[in-house]
Amino acid sequence: MLVRLLYASRVSDGNMCDIVQSIMQQSRQHNPPHGITGVLCHTDAVFMQVLEGGRKAVNTLYSHILRDPRHTDVILLDYEEIGERRYAGWTMGQANMNKINPSILLKYSPLPELNPHEMPGKTLLSLIDELMATASIVGRT
Amino acid sequence: MLVRLLYASRVSDGNMCDIVQSIMQQSRQHNPPHGITGVLCHTDAVFMQVLEGGRKAVNTLYSHILRDPRHTDVILLDYEEIGERRYAGWTMGQANMNKINPSILLKYSPLPELNPHEMPGKTLLSLIDELMATASIVGRT
Amino acid sequence: MLVRLLYASRVSDGNMCDIVQSIMQQSRQHNPPHGITGVLCHTDAVFMQVLEGGRKAVNTLYSHILRDPRHTDVILLDYEEIGERRYAGWTMGQANMNKINPSILLKYSPLPELNPHEMPGKTLLSLIDELMATASIVGRT
Amino acid sequence: MLVRLLYASRVSDGNMCDIVQSIMQQSRQHNPPHGITGVLCHTDAVFMQVLEGGRKAVNTLYSHILRDPRHTDVILLDYEEIGERRYAGWTMGQANMNKINPSILLKYSPLPELNPHEMPGKTLLSLIDELMATASIVGRT
Amino acid sequence: MLVRLLYASRVSDGNMCDIVQSIMQQSRQHNPPHGITGVLCHTDAVFMQVLEGGRKAVNTLYSHILRDPRHTDVILLDYEEIGERRYAGWTMGQANMNKINPSILLKYSPLPELNPHEMPGKTLLSLIDELMATASIVGRT
Amino acid sequence: MLVRLLYASRVSDGNMCDIVQSIMQQSRQHNPPHGITGVLCHTDAVFMQVLEGGRKAVNTLYSHILRDPRHTDVILLDYEEIGERRYAGWTMGQANMNKINPSILLKYSPLPELNPHEMPGKTLLSLIDELMATASIVGRT
Amino acid sequence: MLVRLLYASRVSDGNMCDIVQSIMQQSRQHNPPHGITGVLCHTDAVFMQVLEGGRKAVNTLYSHILRDPRHTDVILLDYEEIGERRYAGWTMGQANMNKINPSILLKYSPLPELNPHEMPGKTLLSLIDELMATASIVGRT
Amino acid sequence: MLVRLLYASRVSDGNMCDIVQSIMQQSRQHNPPHGITGVLCHTDAVFMQVLEGGRKAVNTLYSHILRDPRHTDVILLDYEEIGERRYAGWTMGQANMNKINPSILLKYSPLPELNPHEMPGKTLLSLIDELMATASIVGRT
Amino acid sequence: MLVRLLYASRVSDGNMCDIVQSIMQQSRQHNPPHGITGVLCHTDAVFMQVLEGGRKAVNTLYSHILRDPRHTDVILLDYEEIGERRYAGWTMGQANMNKINPSILLKYSPLPELNPHEMPGKTLLSLIDELMATASIVGRT
Amino acid sequence: MLVRLLYASRVSDGNMCDIVQSIMQQSRQHNPPHGITGVLCHTDAVFMQVLEGGRKAVNTLYSHILRDPRHTDVILLDYEEIGERRYAGWTMGQANMNKINPSILLKYSPLPELNPHEMPGKTLLSLIDELMATASIVGRT
Repeated sequence: MLVRLLYASRVSDGNMCDIVQSIMQQSRQHNPPHGITGVLCHTDAVFMQVLEGGRKAVNTLYSHILRDPRHTDVILLDYEEIGERRYAGWTMGQANMNKINPSILLKYSPLPELNPHEMPGKTLLSLIDELMATASIVGRT
Repeated sequence: MLVRLLYASRVSDGNMCDIVQSIMQQSRQHNPPHGITGVLCHTDAVFMQVLEGGRKAVNTLYSHILRDPRHTDVILLDYEEIGERRYAGWTMGQANMNKINPSILLKYSPLPELNPHEMPGKTLLSLIDELMATASIVGRT
Repeated sequence: MLVRLLYASRVSDGNMCDIVQSIMQQSRQHNPPHGITGVLCHTDAVFMQVLEGGRKAVNTLYSHILRDPRHTDVILLDYEEIGERRYAGWTMGQANMNKINPSILLKYSPLPELNPHEMPGKTLLSLIDELMATASIVGRT
Repeated sequence: MLVRLLYASRVSDGNMCDIVQSIMQQSRQHNPPHGITGVLCHTDAVFMQVLEGGRKAVNTLYSHILRDPRHTDVILLDYEEIGERRYAGWTMGQANMNKINPSILLKYSPLPELNPHEMPGKTLLSLIDELMATASIVGRT
Repeated sequence: MLVRLLYASRVSDGNMCDIVQSIMQQSRQHNPPHGITGVLCHTDAVFMQVLEGGRKAVNTLYSHILRDPRHTDVILLDYEEIGERRYAGWTMGQANMNKINPSILLKYSPLPELNPHEMPGKTLLSLIDELMATASIVGRT
Repeated sequence: MLVRLLYASRVSDGNMCDIVQSIMQQSRQHNPPHGITGVLCHTDAVFMQVLEGGRKAVNTLYSHILRDPRHTDVILLDYEEIGERRYAGWTMGQANMNKINPSILLKYSPLPELNPHEMPGKTLLSLIDELMATASIVGRT
Repeated sequence: MLVRLLYASRVSDGNMCDIVQSIMQQSRQHNPPHGITGVLCHTDAVFMQVLEGGRKAVNTLYSHILRDPRHTDVILLDYEEIGERRYAGWTMGQANMNKINPSILLKYSPLPELNPHEMPGKTLLSLIDELMATASIVGRT
Repeated sequence: MLVRLLYASRVSDGNMCDIVQSIMQQSRQHNPPHGITGVLCHTDAVFMQVLEGGRKAVNTLYSHILRDPRHTDVILLDYEEIGERRYAGWTMGQANMNKINPSILLKYSPLPELNPHEMPGKTLLSLIDELMATASIVGRT
Repeated sequence: MLVRLLYASRVSDGNMCDIVQSIMQQSRQHNPPHGITGVLCHTDAVFMQVLEGGRKAVNTLYSHILRDPRHTDVILLDYEEIGERRYAGWTMGQANMNKINPSILLKYSPLPELNPHEMPGKTLLSLIDELMATASIVGRT
Repeated sequence: MLVRLLYASRVSDGNMCDIVQSIMQQSRQHNPPHGITGVLCHTDAVFMQVLEGGRKAVNTLYSHILRDPRHTDVILLDYEEIGERRYAGWTMGQANMNKINPSILLKYSPLPELNPHEMPGKTLLSLIDELMATASIVGRT
């Protein structure tokens, strides 16, 4: 059974740049053997990540994230059983939301800043679709 | 929560050209920090403006407009909570309805003149879509 | 409130060519100030006309037609309130049904001749759409 | 081909009570042989009538009404080809809108008075349905 | 043109009980001649009111409310053009949200308290429907 | 923002009867102030619980459950933002799946036993609906 | 493969009462072994019959009817492959259209008389449904 | 009223090539004055023909075919009232099913041969659409 | 994963009454531990059985039936993954088609006899629904 | 009657390469005369095959496969009556799943390996569609 899970969190402490790099490195090692694909978006303070894969694998990873000291204020935003993946080609794509065109963010949120803890899950998935459509995600295998 | 609000008003007094210029200038200053986008249409006597943004920001701006002495006969035409903006790229677009092709107006109204106080809100939103589709709006950032 | 009205009639007497010319001339004078647009189709014996405009203006014109001695057997075929016009660019388009490709007529009627008094209104509106799609209407402003 | 036609008019002159009586008497004579059924609503000043029957019969009757000196400001409100009648059991039902519960009128119009010249045709058909549902129409055969 | 408008506000100052009574008394005088119907819900601190009527009448009343010193934090929650009213029988119904079954509030909001400034407009209209269905509104004429 | 979350887990150790009793007692204390409602189903070895409430409150509770040593093999089965609750009247309903009619379980699963770790989330929500419809849940406030 | 076929015809000559009796007698003998069910409606001059059964059996019967000298002006009105019969309980029901309530006919046709050669097939099937709903058909086995 | 009729038959006797030629010649003479259009498909033993036109004209032609000694095993496959023709440009198109790509037939039937007496009418209409889409029909005027 | 499978077969040899009794006895023993439910219909010569259960269990049973010498001409008629069972309360219901009201069979088939090898699967499932609705199935646990 | 059947199995013993070759050879001989088309996918251990054709022919072939000693763990995954084939041009297409782009498999399954015994039938049909769209199937006639 395939599922797609979207969550957001805040960086608890430390330099975002280093943290993103360490998460991406872990993803590249951990995800392929577990069949997990997805995209990681971040600002200087906030993460938003969409994960796709088998139901058990995604649940295991999400419970690790909940315990990971680098994340705080973890909140589940969307979760559904899916017939097919949308990000099958991304071991883990990446988008720095500080560097994208602000009108992309503005299209989905009241102000041109990423504030996923206050937004509906489906709106955030539309935002990630827009990021893909505008080639704002890097790291495709 | 994002909303879209459409209203119309009549110019209470003074030269429309000057008033539009002052409104546009205020918009360029006021809108970006408050995350408001939209389009302002006008003839020599009538305004019609669509505003998009956070629910609170749009309500605050609309209550200012109701009190603004430059506007009279202010009437709310449409209001809805939206998942995404339609005018995210416009700090405040502008269309002088006296200068557009009259068949655009005729498509939506009984006579080739803008008379929003007598027209349904959804029809006026279709007219603004047509203005965008025919590149009749100026001022895109 | 915009409406679209379709009616048919038979020429009561006289030369069709002259009558059509006089109707078209009246349309070019009368329609623009009243905001009426539309298309007039005719054979040597039959008229079919679609009128769009404000509800009051279209009703006034239709009651004149009912009293106009050039028309007999006037029959209302379709009438509806509309959100937008389909013929906004035509002060009054014109199609001589004797000169169009007969397979266009055959597509909608039992024989390749225009017999609107025996046909459903929606079918006749589809026929007029087909005339537009095949550039069989002349007189666009 | 069956059609349903809804129109409104204003009484041009004279006592409404007498006029309604004469219209109802004509209906009882004229309608059965021509297969026309329907409902007549009126206030002291305004008529609204829905007519059902063969397309030719309804058109003939409507063109008589347009020429009838008792009616002025005649306006077509709705017209459609129908698969079955809604008023097959009424030679001509009748409703005095001054005597019905005002909240029935208020449900469909801005003020508790019948003003069909300013209302959409479909809304007025819903009002007539409500009159039937609340047994406000008299004269069923 | 009929519209339905829903807004919320906070009581700016004074005893809620007295304010509600004065608002209800004004409604009973003002609403019938202007064809306005609706429902007023309140707690000790918050108002939520739905207004139905002609577009102009509802807009005039709403602009008075925006200027009424008894209301603060006025926010528009829903607005739409409607074919028929839902509250035609209420000059102004009334519901004291502190006295209703808390599970009615809980069905639509995170906590059993009325917090309309944080809730979507459609959800609040569903809550008012539930209040009607459970006979929690008083004051039907 | 209201959400509904469904998860399953296995009892890690100890007597199910005692554990259920302690969970129910905590629910009765913890849930009302946090606005959480729901239903807890269990066998001798497996839990399945549906939680409704504000997005933050439900997420906080779910992250506690993931860390609660009484639960093992915790798996998220369904999660969605909702307009209204389905279990607003239950502080925490309870169903002992060993005591219900086995054909209720059989209707949704290959064998008459609860095995949520192998079943789709939507099917399990249908099973809980069936439990409510057949009055198999106890503990309504 | 099951089909439903509706046709109409005119009686070519002779007494309708005798002809209907002979057709009904043949139906009672011929239809059961061939699995044909249906309804026969008639006036003094016109037949309308709906036949249901296997595709081959219905076609064989219809080609006999086309050659039967008792029928003239035979016209096919409707034909479709069906998943289930609507008249499975009628070897051949019968309705004398001269004896039914005229408002039943009026509901579907311009005048209160059966004129199937001028009516759409689907409208006639609705008329037969109405005859069943009003118990106007006799002869159920 | 326009109808579309599809039937199949078997050649009773004689050389198919000659028979098809004689049918096509009759069609070219008979169809235009009666407003009939359509397509004739055949193998060495089987005909399948779709006819479009006025209801009366198509019925007259079909009753001739039922009596035509060149046809045996005539079976009606589909019949419906239509708003517009699909074959308005074909006096009578023609397709020799022995010469088309066998995978076209295989797409709609168990074996690559035309066996209309065993197939549903809608499937055969889809096959004719496929013949048009693949330009397998000859004889367009 | 739950599935529903419908097949038909002919009795290869022997007394149908004895065979049905032996199949029913095996079902009562074999089905409960494997979670299989369903209905068996039969005449003197033909079986039709619907089976519901886990995908693996139903497939294992069906492959046994294909090898069972009591069945010949086994043919699969319908198979689908289902969210819930329709026959959860029947270990194995039973219907002797020779004893039911013949108009039930006639509703779905050309002749009043069960001939599943010639009928579509969905039609046969509708027939079984009709058997349940008319209480023609015996053996509910 | 056309059907589409999808099943999976495991190779019971021997070299997959040889077995696939022998199956493909049998298909090329057996399928054309029986009107069967389809696609065979395989890894080193698992088969998945979709078969289209007449209902009887496909059933006969599937019962042979169930008895074929080269296949074990045969499981039916999908079966439906179809109006038209999807693989009419393939006597038997072939895809070696070990050689395709792993992201194609990943799109539909938890891990980049073919495991049809654990997947829903419709998902597997989508995977075969994707194989066709990406030209991953060889052997088109």
